Amino acid sequence: MKISQTFMPTLREVPGDAVIASHRLMLRAAMMRKLANGLFAYLPLGLRSFRKVENIIREEMNAIGALEAKPTVIVPGEIWKESGRWDTMGEALLRIKNRQDADLVASPTAEEAFTALLRDEVSSYRQLPLTMYQINTKYRDEIRPRYGVMRGREFTMKDGYSYHTSEESLDDVYQAMGRAYRRIFKRCGLTVIPVKADTGAMGGTGSEEFMVESEIGDNTLILCRDCDYAANVEKAACKPDFEAPASIEAAKAAAAQTPAREKIDTPAVRTIEELCAFLKTDAKQFIKTLIYRGINVEADLSAAPGGSKLEKKSLAPDAPKTYPEAFFAVCIRGDLDVNETKLAAAIKASEVSLASDADVERFTGAPVGFAGPVGLRDIPVIADDSVTAMADAVTGALEKDKHYIHAAYGRDFEPWLVTDIRTVVAGDRCSVCGGELYEKKGNELGHIFKLGNKYTKSMNFRYLDADGKSQIPTMGCYGIGLDRTLASVIEEHHDDDGIVWPMTVAPYHVMIVPIKYDGAVREAADSLAAELEAAGIEVLLDDRDERPGVKFKDADLIGIPLRVVVGEKNLPKVEVKKRTEKESRLTELSAAAAELTGIVRSELAGLNG
Amino acid sequence: MKISQTFMPTLREVPGDAVIASHRLMLRAAMMRKLANGLFAYLPLGLRSFRKVENIIREEMNAIGALEAKPTVIVPGEIWKESGRWDTMGEALLRIKNRQDADLVASPTAEEAFTALLRDEVSSYRQLPLTMYQINTKYRDEIRPRYGVMRGREFTMKDGYSYHTSEESLDDVYQAMGRAYRRIFKRCGLTVIPVKADTGAMGGTGSEEFMVESEIGDNTLILCRDCDYAANVEKAACKPDFEAPASIEAAKAAAAQTPAREKIDTPAVRTIEELCAFLKTDAKQFIKTLIYRGINVEADLSAAPGGSKLEKKSLAPDAPKTYPEAFFAVCIRGDLDVNETKLAAAIKASEVSLASDADVERFTGAPVGFAGPVGLRDIPVIADDSVTAMADAVTGALEKDKHYIHAAYGRDFEPWLVTDIRTVVAGDRCSVCGGELYEKKGNELGHIFKLGNKYTKSMNFRYLDADGKSQIPTMGCYGIGLDRTLASVIEEHHDDDGIVWPMTVAPYHVMIVPIKYDGAVREAADSLAAELEAAGIEVLLDDRDERPGVKFKDADLIGIPLRVVVGEKNLPKVEVKKRTEKESRLTELSAAAAELTGIVRSELAGLNG
Repeated sequence: MKISQTFMPTLREVPGDAVIASHRLMLRAAMMRKLANGLFAYLPLGLRSFRKVENIIREEMNAIGALEAKPTVIVPGEIWKESGRWDTMGEALLRIKNRQDADLVASPTAEEAFTALLRDEVSSYRQLPLTMYQINTKYRDEIRPRYGVMRGREFTMKDGYSYHTSEESLDDVYQAMGRAYRRIFKRCGLTVIPVKADTGAMGGTGSEEFMVESEIGDNTLILCRDCDYAANVEKAACKPDFEAPASIEAAKAAAAQTPAREKIDTPAVRTIEELCAFLKTDAKQFIKTLIYRGINVEADLSAAPGGSKLEKKSLAPDAPKTYPEAFFAVCIRGDLDVNETKLAAAIKASEVSLASDADVERFTGAPVGFAGPVGLRDIPVIADDSVTAMADAVTGALEKDKHYIHAAYGRDFEPWLVTDIRTVVAGDRCSVCGGELYEKKGNELGHIFKLGNKYTKSMNFRYLDADGKSQIPTMGCYGIGLDRTLASVIEEHHDDDGIVWPMTVAPYHVMIVPIKYDGAVREAADSLAAELEAAGIEVLLDDRDERPGVKFKDADLIGIPLRVVVGEKNLPKVEVKKRTEKESRLTELSAAAAELTGIVRSELAGLNG
Repeated sequence: MKISQTFMPTLREVPGDAVIASHRLMLRAAMMRKLANGLFAYLPLGLRSFRKVENIIREEMNAIGALEAKPTVIVPGEIWKESGRWDTMGEALLRIKNRQDADLVASPTAEEAFTALLRDEVSSYRQLPLTMYQINTKYRDEIRPRYGVMRGREFTMKDGYSYHTSEESLDDVYQAMGRAYRRIFKRCGLTVIPVKADTGAMGGTGSEEFMVESEIGDNTLILCRDCDYAANVEKAACKPDFEAPASIEAAKAAAAQTPAREKIDTPAVRTIEELCAFLKTDAKQFIKTLIYRGINVEADLSAAPGGSKLEKKSLAPDAPKTYPEAFFAVCIRGDLDVNETKLAAAIKASEVSLASDADVERFTGAPVGFAGPVGLRDIPVIADDSVTAMADAVTGALEKDKHYIHAAYGRDFEPWLVTDIRTVVAGDRCSVCGGELYEKKGNELGHIFKLGNKYTKSMNFRYLDADGKSQIPTMGCYGIGLDRTLASVIEEHHDDDGIVWPMTVAPYHVMIVPIKYDGAVREAADSLAAELEAAGIEVLLDDRDERPGVKFKDADLIGIPLRVVVGEKNLPKVEVKKRTEKESRLTELSAAAAELTGIVRSELAGLNG
């Protein structure tokens, strides 16, 4: 392809809102343009790389037997109401009314569409397992789209869904997907950090996120310096830095050494720091107690303090019964922080948030700042594991300006639930090997997830098993964001001059730059291009009437892996340079095509192999 | 691919609303399923053929130098307001509000998106011409979707747009597109009727529609039995069946033979038929006069009757000034019908419709039924060419129960405009060769169109010409509906048993049907499949444990071009049958792969060549 015959408006300057490298470089290298906030158009050059990512994903999906289908982008709101997500998805779901006032949804994912499609087709266990996917347009009504295609409103996703008669069958496909995802990212030249949710305390094998390190990442990752432990901070666990008693009896026995609990005056003390200064102790001695509000709580509270007053309700006809709202007192050692994702998981809530000051007063009988587990009624106490080792602690006394000292777990209070709700931070120790944990910011490119029967149950997908009994299949879902994957390749592969494409996703393999596209130089450039193209090599030929400096700058910017400079003074030799290297070298024009073809094939094989 | 490893739920029965063959067969052959009214999901088998159509289109677009890009499906409403189509597109435009209350549009076409994208990139004549296209999801909020993917709400379209500095340059691309479209449809095995709008009286070379014959077609086509004349009835012209005078003077001279005009009583006469019976004459003697209302009329009416009272206005800041509403008296020979598309073109109106009874009375001074061109004031008279030959006619006298006889064109009235506004019907004579015209119903698969500067002007796309002067590019647009093309292939290629795919768009080339997939038969089937696949032939192998009858029925239904039956009794021979033929023949298993590969390649070459 000659540059004069394509459309490649490269830019020297970029808009100030392009703060990350991939956003800047995709604009500068004429890969894409902004149509509106969060809406981007791929230009021809960008679309070539986009299609290569798409094809890599398609090949790997087909290789594990996933079947490609194509539902619509805009789907009936009805099926989102069936699954319950019409109500729970929030405002990021783009809801549409058509001319007949029917509800539609611009799909952000397609659990509903595939489940609706297949529940009418599958009636027997013989038709399962079934793994289908699409590579299609998605929409999220992001409140604040930014970073170019990294977080746009419209984007392309490969989303797959599998249906199974057993957990084993789901696990087979889940594992195959995990392997396929690793191959996909490797082929794209990406270093991903697979983050399992089954590491450490969380148990289960249900979810794996594929992250890339990114200064603007949405996610905080916790990694171990000594082993390959990696987890999203939302779910990360660590090795306890305390000695937990073996049982509550052991805790009570340990507490026998502790002086009796004593209520003391703590006037004008507002923060933990002030309290520690006042008592000349440190935060590790303090039991921090926070009142949380849970929404749609599935955990059974019938035997919990105050639980008998609560009533479970169904939000939708087929939805499970939950407590629409429930409050909890959450205790943790004073130097640690509560992890709300773990807390929500522990009580099976769709959402948790700190209670209002009024609710704190209602449950603790005191203003904010004096909550503690001792003497609390009508509210279940949840304690982090760290609290179990606290046999002589300071904590709020449920009265203004009063605290207890010498409070002991087991003796002075018994929580309703003890579990890990601690937020792991850099410096904590690895739960696997004891190594030091550290933090990275990451962006999620892909996610594989065992969904269970959430959708198949609410949407009434049933099949007959071998005994003729009606069953509900279990389900998995598997997504990759294409635009974000492409942008991440650029994040990982660029330098100050521009993009440095891996061969597999480069828009072209070889760029030919004639110093002046004329006479013998033109002839040499054309014949080299023809020879390469005949060998299946993708060539971009800079036939523009521009100064060599401009052409070299553009070549570096758009980052084609191999550059060949054809100039009069070197003929019959040409100058070959890899984008990854500083130095070029001369090679005979007559041998150049074979040499370049060899490099292209070997780099492709290296990444694809 | 083995059937057991794909998802191919063929059906014996189909829903009653599937009235056309392609809709029925796409459901029965497991190509697609309905998600909701007008929304269809392609299943794996259907998606394979869909992608083949897509690739044929992409190859032909790339071959003529069109550049593929990818704007978003959902675009800002802002650009549709700039072009004016936000207001003029009617309810078929799916308008969306996002969470920030901004207007969005689910694109039905993308003149706006491409023009908005390129106006910011193109500043010089050196960057033009530029032809870009996308193959992307589109949405039309059809009031009554039907016929399966033939008229769905969401669909896929290849839509291309070109921008030029001259009419000649536009014409070059327009002609190349026309040739590419012919190749695309030929490669898909489709017989299309290219319908030019430049035939006959309309002049110009601005539009060509690619139609397929269809009993449920939206369009009526007028074709000649003797030459290749073909036109949409909206624009079709015919050879006049009257002798028009050379000039109005000649008409006046001819009228000298006619007795003086006379007003007669025509009591209780309501229709032309009644009038003809009453006067013992026929409809050809009658000048039918209809009052029409035009919307957004661009024609200059300043010198027309009543025109000085009208005022032109701009609907949008950059939109041309038009008359928001204007009325016309339209005359035509009594046996003919007014063609509203031609009428709208003649007065450059966005829409025309018959005036209300009240408006008829206002302009004619009489109730409906007594309009005529003689003595009309304050309204421009438009006459069809047929009226010019009427030197002794009957027409309404602008009074209840009164008509004129002996009314003569030129002598008794002079229209403001005389032009062709006749609806051509079967039996009329061809304007090119005089042959007999006939009618067909057709569906439009593609359309190429010279748009001029409608979008570039309203959206302020400007470039500097060679003299440094600011200019507005002229524009063309070029669309093909992919889903409709695929469905039309099935309409043209099926029989009572199922689809009969052309090789180029068949989901697989060869179907292998083992009578019982076991032992030597299984080995033979597997090895044949492997050999074919190694040669690049796409094979579907029916490895199901079904009766041969079921397998044969499904093979006919899904219509793979070549079927190979492998049965114990014939081995080492196998039975080869083309889907187009009734009879099969035996061939040596050892020679089968080479033979089948030969047929596949030769059929592909025949269609692609």
